Amino acid sequence: MTTAPHKLRPIRRDHRTDKVSIIDQRLLPHELVVIDLETVSDAVRAIREMAVRGAPLIGVTAAYGLFLAARAGAGRGVDDASLRQAARLLTDARPTAVNLAWAVARVLAATLAAPQAARPEAARRAADAVWEEELENCRRIGEAGLPLIRALHAERGGETVNILTHCNAGWLACVDYGTATAPIYLAAEAGIDVHVWVDETRPLNQGARLTAWELGQRGVRHTIITDNAGGHLMQHGLVDMVIVGTDRTTCTGDVANKIGTYLKALAARDNGVPFYVALPSSTFDWHLRDGLREIPIEERAPDEVRYVQGLAGNRLERVLVPPADSPAANYAFDVTPARLVTGFITERGVCRATEADIRRLFPDKGPPE
Amino acid sequence: MTTAPHKLRPIRRDHRTDKVSIIDQRLLPHELVVIDLETVSDAVRAIREMAVRGAPLIGVTAAYGLFLAARAGAGRGVDDASLRQAARLLTDARPTAVNLAWAVARVLAATLAAPQAARPEAARRAADAVWEEELENCRRIGEAGLPLIRALHAERGGETVNILTHCNAGWLACVDYGTATAPIYLAAEAGIDVHVWVDETRPLNQGARLTAWELGQRGVRHTIITDNAGGHLMQHGLVDMVIVGTDRTTCTGDVANKIGTYLKALAARDNGVPFYVALPSSTFDWHLRDGLREIPIEERAPDEVRYVQGLAGNRLERVLVPPADSPAANYAFDVTPARLVTGFITERGVCRATEADIRRLFPDKGPPE
Repeated sequence: MTTAPHKLRPIRRDHRTDKVSIIDQRLLPHELVVIDLETVSDAVRAIREMAVRGAPLIGVTAAYGLFLAARAGAGRGVDDASLRQAARLLTDARPTAVNLAWAVARVLAATLAAPQAARPEAARRAADAVWEEELENCRRIGEAGLPLIRALHAERGGETVNILTHCNAGWLACVDYGTATAPIYLAAEAGIDVHVWVDETRPLNQGARLTAWELGQRGVRHTIITDNAGGHLMQHGLVDMVIVGTDRTTCTGDVANKIGTYLKALAARDNGVPFYVALPSSTFDWHLRDGLREIPIEERAPDEVRYVQGLAGNRLERVLVPPADSPAANYAFDVTPARLVTGFITERGVCRATEADIRRLFPDKGPPE
Repeated sequence: MTTAPHKLRPIRRDHRTDKVSIIDQRLLPHELVVIDLETVSDAVRAIREMAVRGAPLIGVTAAYGLFLAARAGAGRGVDDASLRQAARLLTDARPTAVNLAWAVARVLAATLAAPQAARPEAARRAADAVWEEELENCRRIGEAGLPLIRALHAERGGETVNILTHCNAGWLACVDYGTATAPIYLAAEAGIDVHVWVDETRPLNQGARLTAWELGQRGVRHTIITDNAGGHLMQHGLVDMVIVGTDRTTCTGDVANKIGTYLKALAARDNGVPFYVALPSSTFDWHLRDGLREIPIEERAPDEVRYVQGLAGNRLERVLVPPADSPAANYAFDVTPARLVTGFITERGVCRATEADIRRLFPDKGPPE
């Protein structure tokens, strides 16, 4: 384990008591509440209602969800049908992120392979492995991306490097470091003067609530902007680089990420700003070739658009912004075509957004097409 | 006067009492409050604090503001210095919209030309003329844009025409009809099935609060979306046309409008969706040739980004979204280069976004360059 025990984590399994707990991210940044997941239903609900979110984290949460299902047999272990049913519930909790299905498939296979009595232990080990690998992948993504920031810093004669990010692909979305933020944290640790433009990321404001909070926790300089502002900043030379995460990326390089990412990619292209996507290999979908046609885009409740949550005085409050009878639509993700992506930052290094270059880094992954 | 007396107006002068009153748009859609403007300072404050907003409307409000200044002499009329001082205060209230300066210059000239005792009457007449012309211009913009919607309707075999708009360039931003919405209202009146995608328009949510409300008031079908969603909708063929307003447009066709407009123009271009800008000729700045370099972009208070206002239960409440100590930046406008604009819809018809075509429609306007 590479983790220091005092560090805040979006999910952890207590090694003494075996309790699985998460930070309820719906209440951040104003309340830091840790809740226990007791059953697979708790895990499904946490994923669906976005108490946990972010592609790597919902994968890890689902992995522990399956562990909770495996443990439910209370010593006797659970049968195949129950495990498969739990796996299906977890996988169906959200449709867009592929890590979810990947993590569940992996823990399910390891658990089914064990004799019934040994299944809780097998599931625990497999889930822990997912946890540790995602942590290690994020650290490596940071190391792979750091030279890009270092080069911009040199290019700018040592002046501040301004990086724009959308949504939260930070340590709150992973286990530590984050994906998009990993190179940023490593650059800050290396003494490079970085400043982050944080898209507030409507409708759920993961940028304003989560990315700003976690950057602040680690002392990284940042400024919150509306999702509308990035194009203007790029037109005026105020953005040196964009780094975002992704919920699913095809083997051809099409990137599903939080709604609005595509607009930032267009602006980056129009202004010659490099646009990078940081991801662990678990986020590649090796089966899909056309992101726009093939990646399912989740539609969520319109009230997530109509209501905004924040602090009124010292209590959390939800306010209705539009007229009570005006309808809203809530598409959660969009797809940025590979042609707009400068490169991918992965745990195995940086590659261009082409199938050939992706497969060069990951010759061992996915089915041959 | 072409107005029916019962119609709700964002600004009106009562012809009996001479009172000037506005709708306080900061409280819409949840409270409809009409406030009186008594002095030029009231008008300046209403413009600066955005009780009124929208390029044509702040021009009209400033025109009446100068009338209030001219009336302050209480029968004796006011001197040149006081009038010029009032004009400066009004013009400086907001930097980006050009209608403001245009309307003030026009009313100032008419007022100064009158003998001192006749100045209140001269100012009243000039301000009323601005009011009536902006109303008439909007109606004509509607007539000029209607054939574009009619053509799309035919092209789609009579199916719904989906129009995306950003911010509020509706009747609340003008005197009636609006600019961007004028063709939409006329299409709806003509029985064409139109549906409007309303960008919520952060940070002040003029789309969600104002455009949705005024479309609802007039029975036009609409759906509120986050500012992030338009690109995704265009990628999937769900937008037939974009129409936006503008706060200032150069004689070369560069368009300053609410922050985020540029991102929608990029997405429209990337997906072959026509992108139109509707404006009265008072919004052209005949002196500027390079919008990106020359149009001043207002920066407003960061708390407009950090706090969101809405209804909690049955009272208006402001909630803080990000961490209390996270800074925010608030650029109010951006500039969409002419190359991304399909055409302008003006009171004299439609033209392409080139200087030659703009000047073809308006040979009588502006200084020869």
